[in-house]
Amino acid sequence: MSLLIVGSVAYDVIELPGREPIEGLGGSASYFTTAASILTRPSLIAVVGDDFLPEDHAFLNGRGIDTSGLTTRTGPTFRWQARYHKDMKGRDTLRTDLGVFADFSPVIGPGLNHPDILFLGCIKPSLQRCVMSQVARPRLVGLDTIECWIADDREDLVELRKSTDILFVNDDEVMQLGCGRSVVASARAVMDLGVPYVVVKRGEFGAILFHGDRIWLFPAFPLDGVQDPTGAGDSFAGGALGFLDVLQEFDTDAIRLAMAVGTVMGSLCVEGFGPRHLAGVTVADLQGRLEAYLDMMSLDKARAIAAMSALTKGGNA
Amino acid sequence: MSLLIVGSVAYDVIELPGREPIEGLGGSASYFTTAASILTRPSLIAVVGDDFLPEDHAFLNGRGIDTSGLTTRTGPTFRWQARYHKDMKGRDTLRTDLGVFADFSPVIGPGLNHPDILFLGCIKPSLQRCVMSQVARPRLVGLDTIECWIADDREDLVELRKSTDILFVNDDEVMQLGCGRSVVASARAVMDLGVPYVVVKRGEFGAILFHGDRIWLFPAFPLDGVQDPTGAGDSFAGGALGFLDVLQEFDTDAIRLAMAVGTVMGSLCVEGFGPRHLAGVTVADLQGRLEAYLDMMSLDKARAIAAMSALTKGGNA
Repeated sequence: MSLLIVGSVAYDVIELPGREPIEGLGGSASYFTTAASILTRPSLIAVVGDDFLPEDHAFLNGRGIDTSGLTTRTGPTFRWQARYHKDMKGRDTLRTDLGVFADFSPVIGPGLNHPDILFLGCIKPSLQRCVMSQVARPRLVGLDTIECWIADDREDLVELRKSTDILFVNDDEVMQLGCGRSVVASARAVMDLGVPYVVVKRGEFGAILFHGDRIWLFPAFPLDGVQDPTGAGDSFAGGALGFLDVLQEFDTDAIRLAMAVGTVMGSLCVEGFGPRHLAGVTVADLQGRLEAYLDMMSLDKARAIAAMSALTKGGNA
Repeated sequence: MSLLIVGSVAYDVIELPGREPIEGLGGSASYFTTAASILTRPSLIAVVGDDFLPEDHAFLNGRGIDTSGLTTRTGPTFRWQARYHKDMKGRDTLRTDLGVFADFSPVIGPGLNHPDILFLGCIKPSLQRCVMSQVARPRLVGLDTIECWIADDREDLVELRKSTDILFVNDDEVMQLGCGRSVVASARAVMDLGVPYVVVKRGEFGAILFHGDRIWLFPAFPLDGVQDPTGAGDSFAGGALGFLDVLQEFDTDAIRLAMAVGTVMGSLCVEGFGPRHLAGVTVADLQGRLEAYLDMMSLDKARAIAAMSALTKGGNA
């Protein structure tokens, strides 16, 4: 049981409609590990500046996260500022100060270089490759990326296809990477490159899992109110891969269940602010919401097929 | 077995990105009845002008649709022109010429005034009330509406709550009608008015069914390419209520299955142009896609719960 993530630990300033800007711990690796830490004990490879607060370090340690791979360099921690649109869906990045993250060169020590599961968080593809070269082949590798790297580092990304089991992307990213006329066609094109599983994340509308010629749908858990959408995708991945790390099963059925767990984790994430909010979530919360989610999706297939087969009596078939 | 719809029969001019405008039969009642006619023999109450083409009349009759309630008046048929945005999601209405539809005054003759199921398509709420007053209480009443009537005719709409079993609305409409801070809260507020089932249609992202404190999710069937999104919502309703008309069951489980049938019907609609395209769809097509759809949604709940209950060993619970 070992889950390693390489990604960013940052300070976010989030501007939500009608609220004062909120500053606090952020970054893909913070959300991912906090979510995963509800289920397992993930390890973290990241870099922070010498302004990184001891209380934030203590928070991560307190979650049972192995932070031996979190290095501190002289200079400022990565800072990111964004303003959400009124509908809480779109957002504009106001500021990206990479700080010490600009020279991030991940080193995977001997204690961390044989994980069961590796998550290559959203960092430059050449760094993701550098990480891959330092670890024994994990049982499962997840990879996240964004549009700028699909545009500028396509060669590195395509090279990573060989070692990626699950690619996490959104609608625009899969279209950009797969160059198909639709999300479905693009996901198929990415799988043709050699990636066995493609997860297309659609924010408040959920996710789709592609594998071979199969498709599975994971609509979002409906919420009465979203506080802050930041980190939903990383919490989704952290929940999904944290679940698989405990389950220690990596077949398609396990991965499908993991997507349901990820969906539920993403919904818990956006009900509060920052990764610290996720620390208040228990396994029991997750279990309860997962059960409710499965009920919302359940349909009696046998009854449906029986009903459909009786339908020819009325229509134009 | 009787399904009655009151709505619009129109000529649409649809401008899709990179294509010449396409003109042809449209309107909520045309899509609804053509979709429903795959499963059952719906009846239609609508009005057309004296320019309505005999071949379009023949098309509807040829589908087994009872058009005895389709009246012809002197003047032009309702015409609607819209241009879709490049992403095929949003659209702008370029032209709305009501023609004879402006003076539409539905009269339900003695052969049609005791339907099992009544669908009050998207017409002025006062006309929907006028229809209700002319029919014996159906076993199920579906109602569709849009933002302009929620704004201008709220009183008539709220009055209709008493006789509506299923309300079909989109995200914006349910928020406007329910005045909640979210889709979930707004749907609950609408149910508090006395509507037992609320269906929120979300286009390419599917639909949500609300009933009491229960929620069920119907993600859209993923398609490799959308030809024309027009009529998807009416085909959804036509498929759902056509299914219930054949099934002749009206409990919650039946309504949930109907939502899956509607979702699949909507996906078949948008793969071609206009209601005529739906005439090429067979019950077998629908059955095949429904089975594929149920597979895309199926999760092994027992395994999920078992897996989740084993999770406390690793995490911070």
